[in-house]
Amino acid sequence: MPTYSIGLDFGTESVRALLVDVSTGEAVATAVESYAEGVIDERLPGTTSRLPPDWALQNPADWLTGLERTIAAVLAQSRIDPSAVAGIGLDFTSCTVLPAHADGTPLCELPAFSAERHAWPKLWKHHGAQAQADRITAHAAARGERWLPRYGGRISSEWLLPKALEIAEEAPGIFAAADRFIEGADWVVWRLTGSLARNACAAGYKGTWHKREGDPSRDFLAGLRPGFEALYAAKVPHDVVAPGTAVGRLTPAWAERLHLPVGTAVAAPIIDAHAAVLGGGVAAPGTFVMMMGTSTCHLLLADAERPVEGMAGVVEDGIVPGYFAYESGQAAVGDLFAWYAHHAVPPSYHAAAAEQGLSVQALLTAGADGLGPGSSGLLVLDWWQGNRSTLGRSDLSGLIVGATLSTRAEEIFHALVEATAFGTRAIIESYTDQALPVTSIVAGGGLTRNSMLMQIYADVTGRQIAVAGAAQASALGAAMLGAVAAGAGRGGHDTLTEAVARMAPAPTRLYEPIDANTREYDLLYREYTRLYDYFGRGGSEIMKTLRGRRRRVKQA
Amino acid sequence: MPTYSIGLDFGTESVRALLVDVSTGEAVATAVESYAEGVIDERLPGTTSRLPPDWALQNPADWLTGLERTIAAVLAQSRIDPSAVAGIGLDFTSCTVLPAHADGTPLCELPAFSAERHAWPKLWKHHGAQAQADRITAHAAARGERWLPRYGGRISSEWLLPKALEIAEEAPGIFAAADRFIEGADWVVWRLTGSLARNACAAGYKGTWHKREGDPSRDFLAGLRPGFEALYAAKVPHDVVAPGTAVGRLTPAWAERLHLPVGTAVAAPIIDAHAAVLGGGVAAPGTFVMMMGTSTCHLLLADAERPVEGMAGVVEDGIVPGYFAYESGQAAVGDLFAWYAHHAVPPSYHAAAAEQGLSVQALLTAGADGLGPGSSGLLVLDWWQGNRSTLGRSDLSGLIVGATLSTRAEEIFHALVEATAFGTRAIIESYTDQALPVTSIVAGGGLTRNSMLMQIYADVTGRQIAVAGAAQASALGAAMLGAVAAGAGRGGHDTLTEAVARMAPAPTRLYEPIDANTREYDLLYREYTRLYDYFGRGGSEIMKTLRGRRRRVKQA
Repeated sequence: MPTYSIGLDFGTESVRALLVDVSTGEAVATAVESYAEGVIDERLPGTTSRLPPDWALQNPADWLTGLERTIAAVLAQSRIDPSAVAGIGLDFTSCTVLPAHADGTPLCELPAFSAERHAWPKLWKHHGAQAQADRITAHAAARGERWLPRYGGRISSEWLLPKALEIAEEAPGIFAAADRFIEGADWVVWRLTGSLARNACAAGYKGTWHKREGDPSRDFLAGLRPGFEALYAAKVPHDVVAPGTAVGRLTPAWAERLHLPVGTAVAAPIIDAHAAVLGGGVAAPGTFVMMMGTSTCHLLLADAERPVEGMAGVVEDGIVPGYFAYESGQAAVGDLFAWYAHHAVPPSYHAAAAEQGLSVQALLTAGADGLGPGSSGLLVLDWWQGNRSTLGRSDLSGLIVGATLSTRAEEIFHALVEATAFGTRAIIESYTDQALPVTSIVAGGGLTRNSMLMQIYADVTGRQIAVAGAAQASALGAAMLGAVAAGAGRGGHDTLTEAVARMAPAPTRLYEPIDANTREYDLLYREYTRLYDYFGRGGSEIMKTLRGRRRRVKQA
Repeated sequence: MPTYSIGLDFGTESVRALLVDVSTGEAVATAVESYAEGVIDERLPGTTSRLPPDWALQNPADWLTGLERTIAAVLAQSRIDPSAVAGIGLDFTSCTVLPAHADGTPLCELPAFSAERHAWPKLWKHHGAQAQADRITAHAAARGERWLPRYGGRISSEWLLPKALEIAEEAPGIFAAADRFIEGADWVVWRLTGSLARNACAAGYKGTWHKREGDPSRDFLAGLRPGFEALYAAKVPHDVVAPGTAVGRLTPAWAERLHLPVGTAVAAPIIDAHAAVLGGGVAAPGTFVMMMGTSTCHLLLADAERPVEGMAGVVEDGIVPGYFAYESGQAAVGDLFAWYAHHAVPPSYHAAAAEQGLSVQALLTAGADGLGPGSSGLLVLDWWQGNRSTLGRSDLSGLIVGATLSTRAEEIFHALVEATAFGTRAIIESYTDQALPVTSIVAGGGLTRNSMLMQIYADVTGRQIAVAGAAQASALGAAMLGAVAAGAGRGGHDTLTEAVARMAPAPTRLYEPIDANTREYDLLYREYTRLYDYFGRGGSEIMKTLRGRRRRVKQA
């Protein structure tokens, strides 16, 4: 009889369950449930007071309802014997964090706090703590904190420390009442098992934890705000475990509620983007994983921790135990193409696209497809949202050079695609410059459907790119965690390496670099890096100056 | 009884006659006649053979038919006594040049040559002589010819020398048969009067003539091609006269044909753009004249000849006798805005413009009008057609820096307008850097109807801009030449200064710089000049590299 694992993929608007055969990775059933409250960014449930701009909350009850309904759905769809489910794994948005009582009750569920906005889970894209993030970064830089360079020199407002400090400063009563500050993912596992642990992935990337150095010091925290020094010692779980570790087993109550066996293993969770590494078939060093959507997230496993320029984080055991998982990012990729299609493509293209039943981007792609490397005569710096890696500067902006009266829209689009590929190459080189090997690339995400774009990436990087075969790579990765938490003794797997080897599907397509194009792009990339260095590394501060001027004029 | 002058404005597609009262400048009547053959750029009249790309010819018969019909029309319209017409003046496109026999017959009118394309007048925008222009420039640079810097270091393919060399090389029989190479303007005057002279304006700007140094040397010419050394000595008229000089009087035959008095004075002509200086009311140093259309031509009178960076030419007596007339240029201005509106503005703007009955540029202007200096966060180098002045480099290209996901079309448009204003300021500073005074600005041309643009130019330059009052500034300037050729003794004027003072209308509008904006633009201009120097003066050769790569790829 086959053994199954359930992967739960907690997204921004909904949760997906994927029921997977652990011996083949075959997806037997899947179901999605939207959160009743969705993203809470206008009013708190049950109140009429408006939330400030940049706020984004979630309701923890939605997570539990969602997992219950989707598990019921996949069991019903598949008609399997529920006792064949050996494990459950979760991936989750991060840093999505909530304050809770010592018994696990979210403060927002207590009548005393339910009307307090700071009592609710702050979703990853809650940006209310920007001022706190800036101060934390400045304070860490001034003290020369060793952990700051691991995050490209900048603590994001989306992470644990700024979000906790925001509460400490703006709602000290809630800060005092919170026994725990905990990731949503870990909270769900706590609920399901009664056991509390902190997953190394979110702890490392978003919570400033380091396997060998631990958390930021009391001294550092005290300098941010009196009383804040107890954050990690008193309020953040100390038990940090690698994703896939069995945190516990389903409690009898939850087993009954889910119609699953008592004792079903529940794995330590992982961040959603990072789960896609596993689902994409990668569990060993040397393969560079790109999740290409509105932005692109790059992940690389390696044997050592090195000072990679502008990385967004490096976490030992962050994805696969025993390896250092590095993360980098490009802030605007799909977003950049969407901006272009919406704001700078003339009507004739929109009309032709409508006539041919294509999206504007598909039409531009068709028009650009025959163009060779650099044939547009254009070169672009793709910094419409700043540069996340390798420069870590949000004060940069987009640049187009080479326009003439004969420049056409498909040429600009081609150059934008090339620019994002050059940006990726710069990130790859930030790893190889540190002697961290990159031998091949696995890509996932919506942009992999654009074969012109994928070929340009292969040509620009000079590397084979495999398009990940899993339709739901994150959910599949979560299911792999469940399989490992169950272990071979219960029909699962003993290691993630084994789980990935058995459960990941073959790539849907391989893109091989075309040598002649790669040679041309080597020349063009040299020009790109000159622009990159000039505008990004201090040769010219004009981008910063222009952004500052714009902000000043807009405010005046 | 009033005295009249007729200004004839020979354009690319048509000729205009303007009948003017010389005491007031009042336009009494005007008429336009399109050339029957128009621009000959597909097939020679009477043949089936296609012309090469880049070719552009005219038919001299069209010029004579056009002037005859338009003069008849203005006389009929105005019902004036034709004997009150004291003078005729011409302005003309340039360099529009033709080979002719010693008796004035164009070679293209001789049966032996009429099927030979090199026998026809080559219109100013004939670009078949680019290879010759490049060799002439290189040869002059190698020899350190003193005249080369007067033309910004570059001889245009549109000018006399390349066009004559093209004939010498590609049609040596026609070169040998040509007794004269002569500007169309001078040829028309020759026809009307029987007298042959070379107008100083075209001779100086397009014919490499200098009042004190004469023409390029025989040595120089011999180095281009054996036999070519005789060009100036044997084939180009030696009598060079300032515009407005009376070259002669209407021959009896032409007087009869035009129904004008025998003896009507005919003035030495002028280039069309330069005529607009006079029609714009300028006959003295210190006023910078901008003719703002698809490209912008800048003209400045001064008391001395100085090495102004990247000027397109400086000619003593070129417009007003006794003054040095400087010319500079921006290659793409209206063309740049048209490119933008056509190729990079999204459908919603086109739809809104149509709904409001506006052009897209008018809609963009309305949207951009409230934006302050630099509020777009964008900075642009307006080199879509290269940079004519001050850099004199056609291998440069357009650059946009500062784009973000919130950048909108009206902001880009605003930044494009600012960029062209910065380009104008750079040109003004190329004069003031040489201690040539610029105290105010007079503007003409279609772009002066855009008041947002005009205010930006006033703010960026920090100078008052007067919009010239003449609806037909070039034709009015030509009529002024006719009035001066007639002289005060025949009811005209003795000097151009006097003619301009009496005949030019007041400006239609004055734009005063707004101090607060000028201060902001001073800061932004500093950033602009840094980009300008970096990309234009050798800090980065990327624009040249990209253009070269594009050309190479397109040819491959």
